[in-house]
Amino acid sequence: MDTGAAIAGLGITDVGKVYGRSARSFAAEAVRLAADDAGLGLADLDGLLVSAGITGGIGIDLAQDLGLTDLRLLTQMNAFGATAGAMVAHAAMAVMSGTASAVACVFADAPLRPGTSAGAAYGGRGGSAGEWHGLQGYAAAAGMRSVNAMYAMAARRHMETYGTTSEQFGAVAVGQRAWAAGNPRAQMREPITLEDHQASRWVAEPLHLLDCCLVSNGGVAVIVTSAERAAGLARPPAHVWGWGQGHPGQRMTRGSAFGLRTGAVTSGASAFKMAGITAADVDVCEIYDCYTYTVVITLEDYGFCAKGEGGAFAASGALGPGGSLPTNTGGGQLSGFYMWGFTPLAEAVIQARGEGGERQADRHDVVLASGNGGILAHHATLILSPHVKGS
Amino acid sequence: MDTGAAIAGLGITDVGKVYGRSARSFAAEAVRLAADDAGLGLADLDGLLVSAGITGGIGIDLAQDLGLTDLRLLTQMNAFGATAGAMVAHAAMAVMSGTASAVACVFADAPLRPGTSAGAAYGGRGGSAGEWHGLQGYAAAAGMRSVNAMYAMAARRHMETYGTTSEQFGAVAVGQRAWAAGNPRAQMREPITLEDHQASRWVAEPLHLLDCCLVSNGGVAVIVTSAERAAGLARPPAHVWGWGQGHPGQRMTRGSAFGLRTGAVTSGASAFKMAGITAADVDVCEIYDCYTYTVVITLEDYGFCAKGEGGAFAASGALGPGGSLPTNTGGGQLSGFYMWGFTPLAEAVIQARGEGGERQADRHDVVLASGNGGILAHHATLILSPHVKGS
Repeated sequence: MDTGAAIAGLGITDVGKVYGRSARSFAAEAVRLAADDAGLGLADLDGLLVSAGITGGIGIDLAQDLGLTDLRLLTQMNAFGATAGAMVAHAAMAVMSGTASAVACVFADAPLRPGTSAGAAYGGRGGSAGEWHGLQGYAAAAGMRSVNAMYAMAARRHMETYGTTSEQFGAVAVGQRAWAAGNPRAQMREPITLEDHQASRWVAEPLHLLDCCLVSNGGVAVIVTSAERAAGLARPPAHVWGWGQGHPGQRMTRGSAFGLRTGAVTSGASAFKMAGITAADVDVCEIYDCYTYTVVITLEDYGFCAKGEGGAFAASGALGPGGSLPTNTGGGQLSGFYMWGFTPLAEAVIQARGEGGERQADRHDVVLASGNGGILAHHATLILSPHVKGS
Repeated sequence: MDTGAAIAGLGITDVGKVYGRSARSFAAEAVRLAADDAGLGLADLDGLLVSAGITGGIGIDLAQDLGLTDLRLLTQMNAFGATAGAMVAHAAMAVMSGTASAVACVFADAPLRPGTSAGAAYGGRGGSAGEWHGLQGYAAAAGMRSVNAMYAMAARRHMETYGTTSEQFGAVAVGQRAWAAGNPRAQMREPITLEDHQASRWVAEPLHLLDCCLVSNGGVAVIVTSAERAAGLARPPAHVWGWGQGHPGQRMTRGSAFGLRTGAVTSGASAFKMAGITAADVDVCEIYDCYTYTVVITLEDYGFCAKGEGGAFAASGALGPGGSLPTNTGGGQLSGFYMWGFTPLAEAVIQARGEGGERQADRHDVVLASGNGGILAHHATLILSPHVKGS
C-alpha cells in the first residue's frame, strides 16, 4: 500500500446564516471548490462519496448536478457525526486499492431558515434523537425529546462521577472562541469570558447556551487521492496516516458507560496504531464539539489526559491559543461553524497544511480530527500530517 | 493484499408478502442469519454496512438493535440498485486493509402493506424517480412520473435502434420463470409461456406486466471477511475476485446514450480487470432485472453478446435452464424476489457455493453479480468464485 492516501483539496462554501440555497447547491459548490483547490477539474474526479446530511436528503444524484459522468465510486453515506471520518477512510481505501484515483467526499446541510431559531432547525428531525426506540416511550415521557437533553444527562453523569464543573466546560468554550478570532469563516468571533459562559441561559441544565454548538447552512468537501499523485497537485497534501472507528452504541441504560466513556477509546487506538503514533505525538486536535462536554470526554478517551481529568485539563488553558495541545483551532462547532464532522476535518486539513494564518499552530506534524454521533454511540478518528507516512 | 476477501455467510429472511414487520426487523434477522450461516456469533462481527433501503429508512441504529457494541466499521450507504455491489466492495477493502475483520452488509425493505398493490408500494417515494430535477417539470408534465414510464422510454429506444422486440424481452421473463421453479424462495414459480408474457397487461408500453420486477418485503445480508479466515468457517466461501462501478449519470436528454448503453460497460471492465478474467470466463450471471430490458442491455454492455444483439441472445435460449449462460438462476427480481441488488448478490453466493439444488448451474467457477439504479445512471459489478483468487 506504499505511501498511502492524502487529502489534496479542500472546499468550504459560505457557511452560517446563508439563506435561499439548498443543501445540494452547497454540496455541488463545495465539490467544485475542493477540486479547484487541488488544481483538478471535475472531470479528473472518478469517485464521489456524498454525506446524506440531516435535513438535506442529498444523494448520489449530486453526481448529475455536477455533470460527473464517469465515476468509478459513488455512494451516499451516513454515520451521523462520524461520517466525515468514515468517508475519508473509505475514500483512502478506494484509492489505495486502485478502485478510484480521486475521490471527492462532501457534506452539506441547510437547516436554517430566516426567522426560525437555530434550536428549531433540527426540530422534529433531530438526527438520532428522533430515531430512538425501545425505551423511546419512557424517554419521551421523561422529557428526553431532544439531543440537548440527552447530552445534558451525559454531561451531568461526568460531573457527578469525576467532579467536572460547569466552569471547566466553560474553559473549552472560552478557549475555542479565542481561536475563532483568528478564523475569518467563524460565525462567532467576539471574545467571551468564563463569566459570559456562566451567565448564558440554560439550554438543558447543566448545559448553558455557550456549551452548545452552532447550527449552520453550508457545505464542505475534500479530495482524497494517492500520496504520490497529491505531491504533484496544487496544494500541500494532508497525508492520511491512519483512521479508526469505535461504535459502543451506548444507551442510557443501567450499567452502561453512557456519559463516561465514548467510542474514542477504540477509534483512537485503531487510528494511532495505523499511523504508528501515540497520543503524545499529536500536535493539534480537532475534536467534534457538539457540546463543550464532548471535547472534555473525547480528550480523556484518546488519552491526552487521565480519565476524569478532562475538565481540569481544559481549565489549565491547554486547549486554547498558546496552550500545550491546540484544540479546535478554527473555533470548532461552538464558535466556527457546524458542518458536523466536516468542521474538524476541514480545520485539520488547514492546520496540516500550515495555512491557518493567525490561528496556525506552531507544530502541526500530526493533526487529529475526530467525529462522534448518535449521542456518543459512534466515533471516527483520522490522523493527518503534512509528511508522507513513514518518512 | 494476498488472497483477498470472501463472502463467508448469507442470510435471507422470509421474503415476499410478509406483513406486520418493519424493515429494521427484517434487517436484524438477516444479519443474524448470515452470521449464523458463517458459523460466527454476532460478537464476531466488527463491521456493519447498512443499506438505507427505499421505504425503510434503516440506519446505523441497527447496530444497537443487534446489540453490537464494538464495531470498527459502521455506516449506512445508498447507491440505489448499485448499493449491494458498492457495499461488498467497501467491505472487502476494509477487510483487506485491516480496518475490520468481519463485516456484515445488509439490505431490507418493507414497502408492501396488506390490501395495497405492488405498484403502489413505492408510490410517491419511488427511489430516483421522486428525486428527478432540472427537467422535472417537463418530465412530470409529459407523464413521466414513475420509474416504469422511464424504463419504458429506455426500452423503446433500444427497440427502435436495434430492432429488439417485445418477444425477445419475453424470452428473458420465460427463462427466469423456468429457473424460479427450482428456487423454493421464489414468489412466482408457476411456468409461463411467451404467450402469457405477450398477453399480460401493459404497465407502461412497451413494458408488459411480466417485464416488470416484483415488490417484496424482507431482508438479505452477507458476511465479508478475509479469504484466509473464510476458509476456516462453516460454509464454502464465495471469494471476491473483483469489483467495479460505472456511473454514466444518464438522463433523457438530447445526445445522451439513455436506453442504449449503461454503466455496465465501465463497471464490468473494471471488475473483469481486477479479477483477471474476460466475459468469456463467466459461468453464471446474476443481473439486476428490474425489467426484462435491463437484462438484455446489461448483457450487451458486459460483452456477452454484440451491441444490439441482447434481444436475440435472450431469444436463443442462452439464459434459461440448459442455456449457454445461465442467468438469474433463482428467478431474479422478475420471478424470485425483489431485494434490490441483494437479489443477484444472494443468488451469486448460492451459485458460487454450488448450493443451488435443482437450479444449480453445472459450471460455477466464475459468477457475476450486477446492480443498476437511478434509471440506468448507476452500476456495480462483483465477480465471485468458489476458488481463491489467483489459485
